[in-house]
Amino acid sequence: MIKKFQDTIAEEIEKLSVELSLPPAELYDPIRYTLAMGGKRIRPLLVMMGCDLFGGKTDDAIAPALAVELFHNFTLVHDDIMDNAPLRRNKVTVHSKWNTPTAILSGDVMMVKAYQLLCRSKLPPHVFDSVLSVFNDMAIKVCEGQQWDVNYEQLHRISIPQYFKMIELKTAVLLATCLKIGALIGGAGKEDAKNIYEFGKNTGIAFQLQDDLLDVYGDEEKFGKQKGGDILSNKKTFLLLKAMDIASSNQYLKEELEQWMTLPPTPELRSQPSLSARLSGERGAKDAAEKIEAVTRIYDFANIKKITEEEINSYHTKAVESFEKVYVSAEKKKVLLDFTSMLLKREV
Amino acid sequence: MIKKFQDTIAEEIEKLSVELSLPPAELYDPIRYTLAMGGKRIRPLLVMMGCDLFGGKTDDAIAPALAVELFHNFTLVHDDIMDNAPLRRNKVTVHSKWNTPTAILSGDVMMVKAYQLLCRSKLPPHVFDSVLSVFNDMAIKVCEGQQWDVNYEQLHRISIPQYFKMIELKTAVLLATCLKIGALIGGAGKEDAKNIYEFGKNTGIAFQLQDDLLDVYGDEEKFGKQKGGDILSNKKTFLLLKAMDIASSNQYLKEELEQWMTLPPTPELRSQPSLSARLSGERGAKDAAEKIEAVTRIYDFANIKKITEEEINSYHTKAVESFEKVYVSAEKKKVLLDFTSMLLKREV
Repeated sequence: MIKKFQDTIAEEIEKLSVELSLPPAELYDPIRYTLAMGGKRIRPLLVMMGCDLFGGKTDDAIAPALAVELFHNFTLVHDDIMDNAPLRRNKVTVHSKWNTPTAILSGDVMMVKAYQLLCRSKLPPHVFDSVLSVFNDMAIKVCEGQQWDVNYEQLHRISIPQYFKMIELKTAVLLATCLKIGALIGGAGKEDAKNIYEFGKNTGIAFQLQDDLLDVYGDEEKFGKQKGGDILSNKKTFLLLKAMDIASSNQYLKEELEQWMTLPPTPELRSQPSLSARLSGERGAKDAAEKIEAVTRIYDFANIKKITEEEINSYHTKAVESFEKVYVSAEKKKVLLDFTSMLLKREV
Repeated sequence: MIKKFQDTIAEEIEKLSVELSLPPAELYDPIRYTLAMGGKRIRPLLVMMGCDLFGGKTDDAIAPALAVELFHNFTLVHDDIMDNAPLRRNKVTVHSKWNTPTAILSGDVMMVKAYQLLCRSKLPPHVFDSVLSVFNDMAIKVCEGQQWDVNYEQLHRISIPQYFKMIELKTAVLLATCLKIGALIGGAGKEDAKNIYEFGKNTGIAFQLQDDLLDVYGDEEKFGKQKGGDILSNKKTFLLLKAMDIASSNQYLKEELEQWMTLPPTPELRSQPSLSARLSGERGAKDAAEKIEAVTRIYDFANIKKITEEEINSYHTKAVESFEKVYVSAEKKKVLLDFTSMLLKREV
């Protein structure tokens, strides 16, 4: 089932890409380039699965599924400008490959195209209105989340509730909306749509926490990603904020952590395939490794791994509780539940 | 009638602005700042007038009217980043007052808000679908127009048809769409909606040509704008492109014009209230005045003023021809026709 949906999505994105072979090339090539980058395409898949969960015709969900993927890609292109990110999914970002005006404009067009795709779905008016309204609310929230993220970058410290609100807006709301859009297309009632949204939202938060955790405690070989990037870039992850909280009542720990955090961030290391290859010399590599080791030691001392895992479980449990309320057969539910569990374990 | 619409629009924008007093301030303040800049708010007015022309309830057109104004402001904020413009309507641009990430994001939110406002209009489904579809097509075209403009900035020369296509997409299509959206809400049929669109499009092109003309031949006191800004910034206006065309068969004129065009552009002069105040010294002011004078002399020699006026008349005539086909009483038509004529004469 999932494989079938994934194949459909890949085919449809390919078709869309051909359709977007238009002039001016500077506007449309970056869109096709971004679409071709791939990624896991989890968001359109969630639209399809949300629709299927309620026994809807998944063909009706294809155009909206493409819409959320385009919207997601729009956010990536604009976020990369704001973050000065040179790489994304190991490929050169749009504003680096072309330039900032082109990245702004092709991002803008992606957003409009997302709306155009939503309109392409031949949904009954009342369903279409709901889908559009949910999509609009999501789009606003994602922008708000990104703005909080940009704001928080400038702050020395933020609270853990601030962090949760930010990742909810920036990451979780889109995942929740994908499921809800699918559910609405599939014919879900108001209550079911609300519960599936809550399920998606809390799963999304758990997913982001897992992401924070894997950066420090992940299996490098398994995830193909250099560890410690968040530490090197002084990124305000749940792990760091929690460690800061704990350190606030321990003078030694506080000084130790703050000392490492005063080192200038090296954000460009995050998206690199090989850490050492990027460092200018032996000394840089040694410094970086030392920082990662030292901060990890603080995390270990403060029991951050366990605390984060408990937090992940707590959000996962909340998610499942909402999902249980959804009025659909256990058999139907299993597909989505297994998929999100696999996502959390990063087995997909 | 027009005054009543203008008052309604001003009130509704004020209400919207209050509604948008939200956190994060970095995201919403720039939107309210942009809305407060004012401008002539011609676009929302055209939506209202388009609706009224067909005897529609203009209350139904308010939300879509705000939507086009927000969309227009979104394009201004993003365009100003791309153009490195320090000022807009004599006020500091968003990216200069805040920063580029904030300008990108608040522009993005403006676009989403535009869609949200469209959805707020409680239109019958078939009208809403048409309005949304027309709006989407317009949004894509405006982005394409801006990309062509960005591309053409890099070229030494573009053809006159390329110029017309660019201003059609970048400027005229939005004006045409405003009228068409209003017409659809007012109950216009397909043929009438098409004709009103053509009327708006050709009026928009005439309007842009007039803008080009006034920069060189306008009455400074009347328009409160320093003349010659386009000449100083080497902007590829209709006047310059036509002069280049004519000069291509006149070696002396060609060399003279090219010599002036090789001077570095001084785009920041364009939006300044006082030219001389911006120039670093006597010498700069003298050079600028000399360039404006010399290029104007070339234009005079090549009869550019008359040629441009003929072109404006030709587009205006085309516009009026389409308008005549619209199946509405002459009395009703007069309001809109008088308004666009006033616009062209810059009396409004």
